[in-house]
Order: sequence, then C-alpha cells, then structure tokens
Amino acid sequence: MKFKLTILGSGGAIPTVQKKPTSQFLNVQERYFLIDCGEGTQIQLRKYACKFQKIDNIFISHLHGDHYLGLIGFLSSLNLLGRNRPINVYAPEKLKKILDVHQEVNGRSFDYEIVFHPLTFNDIALLYEDTLLKIFSFPVLHSVSTCGFLFKEKKRPRNLIKEKISQYKIPVSKLNSIKLGNDFIENEIVIKNSELTISPYKERSYAYCADTLYDEKILKYIKNVDLLYHEATFLSPMLNRAKSTKHSTAEQAALIAKKAMVDKLLIGHFSSRYKDIKLFESEAKNIFEPTVAVSDGDQFEIPLKQSNT
Amino acid sequence: MKFKLTILGSGGAIPTVQKKPTSQFLNVQERYFLIDCGEGTQIQLRKYACKFQKIDNIFISHLHGDHYLGLIGFLSSLNLLGRNRPINVYAPEKLKKILDVHQEVNGRSFDYEIVFHPLTFNDIALLYEDTLLKIFSFPVLHSVSTCGFLFKEKKRPRNLIKEKISQYKIPVSKLNSIKLGNDFIENEIVIKNSELTISPYKERSYAYCADTLYDEKILKYIKNVDLLYHEATFLSPMLNRAKSTKHSTAEQAALIAKKAMVDKLLIGHFSSRYKDIKLFESEAKNIFEPTVAVSDGDQFEIPLKQSNT
Repeated sequence: MKFKLTILGSGGAIPTVQKKPTSQFLNVQERYFLIDCGEGTQIQLRKYACKFQKIDNIFISHLHGDHYLGLIGFLSSLNLLGRNRPINVYAPEKLKKILDVHQEVNGRSFDYEIVFHPLTFNDIALLYEDTLLKIFSFPVLHSVSTCGFLFKEKKRPRNLIKEKISQYKIPVSKLNSIKLGNDFIENEIVIKNSELTISPYKERSYAYCADTLYDEKILKYIKNVDLLYHEATFLSPMLNRAKSTKHSTAEQAALIAKKAMVDKLLIGHFSSRYKDIKLFESEAKNIFEPTVAVSDGDQFEIPLKQSNT
Repeated sequence: MKFKLTILGSGGAIPTVQKKPTSQFLNVQERYFLIDCGEGTQIQLRKYACKFQKIDNIFISHLHGDHYLGLIGFLSSLNLLGRNRPINVYAPEKLKKILDVHQEVNGRSFDYEIVFHPLTFNDIALLYEDTLLKIFSFPVLHSVSTCGFLFKEKKRPRNLIKEKISQYKIPVSKLNSIKLGNDFIENEIVIKNSELTISPYKERSYAYCADTLYDEKILKYIKNVDLLYHEATFLSPMLNRAKSTKHSTAEQAALIAKKAMVDKLLIGHFSSRYKDIKLFESEAKNIFEPTVAVSDGDQFEIPLKQSNT
C-alpha cells in the first residue's frame, strides 16, 4: 500500500557530483513510474536500489537535456538485460525522433516495444488509468512546451468490519455493494452501512511541476494534493533571472504550495551556482512551512490516512 | 611536460554505480583530450577535477551508447557555461546526425562551433597534428565500425648544455641547428654536437583500443607504445561469448600487449557480471606482467625518459 517517491536527481541544467539532473522514481502500490530521466538516471536507479526493471511507464516533462538525456541509456540497458515487455513513454512528440535516430544509428531497434504517447499542452489530460490510480498531464509555463504530472489514487471502497459481517451472516454476494456504502437489506431487515463498515483510506496524490515559471493557472490542477514537487531554480534575489529563463524562485514555489493548499512541498532543480540548498528551504518556509529542499536519494512516503466520510 | 591519463569510466555496456561507461581524459603537455564519452562523463570530469572546459578535441571510437551517450550532455553544459571556442569532434559520420537532431529538438544550436571530423576505417589516419604531437586513428574489429586512437609525441630536439654554449660563445642564430643534431662550424673551427648537447627526452605514446576482438592486425599501429589501453570485457572461460559479441578477454588483451612490446597495459570495459576486477588483472599478468585492471578515477602518468641516441 506504499506511495513512495525517490528523488534521483535534484540538480538544475548543469549537473554536479552531488546534484544529478532531474529524475524521480515513484512507487504507487507496486506500480513503478519514472518521472523525467536526466543523464545518469540508470546509475541513480541502481544506487538507490529502485526496481528499475519493473518500470512500465516513463513520463518526460519537456525536451531540455537535463530532463531526457538519460532515456536512451536507460532503455538500452533494459534491452541488454533482456526486456521483452513493452514500455510506455509519455513525452513531447519530438522525442520520438530522437529515439528513432539513436536506434537507426545503432543499426537495430530495441527487442521490446516502445509505446509512444505524445503529450498535449492545452489542458489537463488523462494519460493512464488502472484499478487503483489515474495519471494526468497538465500544461506548465516554460521556454519550451512542458507538462506537469498528477498521480492520483482512486476513491477506495469502505472497509468491512469483519466481526459484524460474521455476526449478521452477510452473504459474500452482498459485500461489494456494502463496500460501496449501501445498507444491507434482506427480508425487511435493514442493517445500516455505518454498522458494517468503517471509512476507507483517503486517496493519495502527488503533483510534479518542473520546469516552470510562477503560474497560478496550475492551481486548479494541483489543489489539495498530499505532496507537491515544484521547481525552485533560484533564490528571490535572482527573480529577474528566474523570469528571463522561465524558472521559479523558492518563494514562488512556496506561494504556489500555499495557494493550492497542499500538505507538503518539495523543491529542487537548484542552479549549480548555489552551494547551500538550505537557503532555498529557509526562503520557502517563510511562506509555506512544510517545505523540504530535496537532495539526491531522498525518499518521501505519503502515509495512509482514514478519510472523514 | 605531463603525459597523464585519467580513467573516467571503466565499465562495460551496462554501467554500474562503481563502474561508469567508457571515457578517458588525456593531458599531453597541457593539451586536453577526451576519448569516448559514455553517459555521465561530464559528472566524472568534475568528480576527478579534470579541466573539462579546456578540452578542444573529442575522439569517439564507435557508436555504441556506452561510448557516446554522454556527449550531448557534455556539449550542452559547455554551452551553458558560455563556451564560444570551437570544439573538434572526431567520430563515425552518423554521430553528426545525432548531434543535429538533439539541437533541432532543442530549437537552437550551440553558441560555439562543432567542427566535425568523420573517421575512416581502412587504415591508420592522421587526425590531429601540432608542434608537439600527432594523433592517429586506426581500425579495430568490432560489431560496428570502430577506431582505436594513437597519441604520439613528436621527436624532440636535443637539449643544449648551457655552460658549453656560453663557453664557446655560440651565437643564438645557430642554436636551432645544433638542437637538430648538427655540429657547430665557423672559420674552420668545428665543435662536435655531442660536446654541446645531450640526448633529448624520448617521445611518449599512448594507444587506446576499444571495443575490439583480438586482432593482430593492430600490432603494427601500436608497436612499442609506452602505454596501451585494450578492452577486456570477459575472462577466458567466456571466450566464446567474447567472440560472439566482438569483444576480448583479459588474456587476449595481454597477448596483444606482449606481441606489441608495449611498456605497460591497462585493461577495462569489464562486463557488469563480474564483481572482482582483480581476476582480470591476474589472468592478464600470467601473459604480460605490467598490466593494471583500471578503476574509475585511476590516473597513469608516462614519465619523461632520456633517449639513448
């Protein structure tokens, strides 16, 4: 029942020894997702013991090198390791051309299928759905077409109280209906749902926003998420530089988190000109206290909580 | 007067946390060369404090990902760091297409010129020459067109004995002729060159052979080099696998070193299936004692030696 994020790279456009380019590994109940794939991601996945051979879905936010240059190497290694299961790549359309050229130059295609899903940049769009969760893309504002991603668990059924189910001898055929909130009715006997169930766990959510200018238009997509990652390339004294390069400051990331009423904010994508990332955290915490300036290898888990309903 | 090689990556096709993909940094008397550029090379250059902004010439042996996938990231970072000096890339022709596609997808070219020199694969070819050294490519035998590289200092002039030059009041205009080995002759006075000079330092040389099958045809190119790097992907029990994948064993690398009568052999490009690289070193040392199985970060310097002539 995990919802666990591993930061593979916390650096900006120019990677350093400590801060690799952007990539994140997300485990939602044993579904494994890769979000962006900067140079060296395959090494970071190994370093932090992520189950990289189980990744079936890769999301690339935009086509700046620090967000995609590790993809060919990662896909090549999967091929050398004998993968035959298809892999889904959700990315700006032109990435397809890059994938094609590398395979052409290598003189052979990968032995498994790459199912390519071009991103759109107009509005929120459903990319992926299974029994447990949905994944959406939504447009953010950068110097090239860029998407954020929203990972959202589906509403869960209510939890049965086993003793009560036993006591009232409720037949198995009725359990699904009761999980959905219905009362048990048979031969004019009514047992209230509230006596048979407790409220389910709250559905959890994670939103990823990088790279982007400060842009309140994204608030509607990320409202109330449990965990928000928002880039913070600069500190406030470099606000003008942030604007001209279409990036955000730590303060701006915190403002977005506050206005979206999220539970927790992660900031990253720090420019290599800064040596102390605690400065980013302090700046953000002035606006939004539950902020963490992330480092490579950090892990964040969203715990299960009983909902109120 | 340095001739110093830094191993940036000693791993094979699938990189690991300890063994990054192939790349080497060579300093020949403050000329800086990059040989191959696997994924993550720019990070390794930083990690081992190599002067990567001073690299003006990059040599790519062949177009397998573990030898070139770090190139776009490295060139992009140079661009972000404000480079405006041209850079020379010596590589198989199709790499040009990859460079072009990435720049096209990014929507802009680098701000500096990439001077592209396509490799040839028929015979030894001079790639680079300046006052101090020559660099050659030569064909090796792999599953795709692949070159080795030979870095060779030029013959140095003889060293003047200052006291003698002073004593005989030799005019400055004659010094170059004397350095080249000529006697001093004026007004029927002859002073033997051997009285005025001592022998020069021996010219140093380094040959790089990766990836390749065991192939005695390369002996003529690498004969007597001071330092030879030869790939050794497998140990001898996997000789058949080495042959089918067009790689070499440690024993084969040592045989080449022995037959080429080199001073010292470095082996690398170890398959990720092996955990202990000392096994490679032992296998090679049985044939050719002065062998080192390299690790990321290792440095090797070729010392200056007086020549015998």
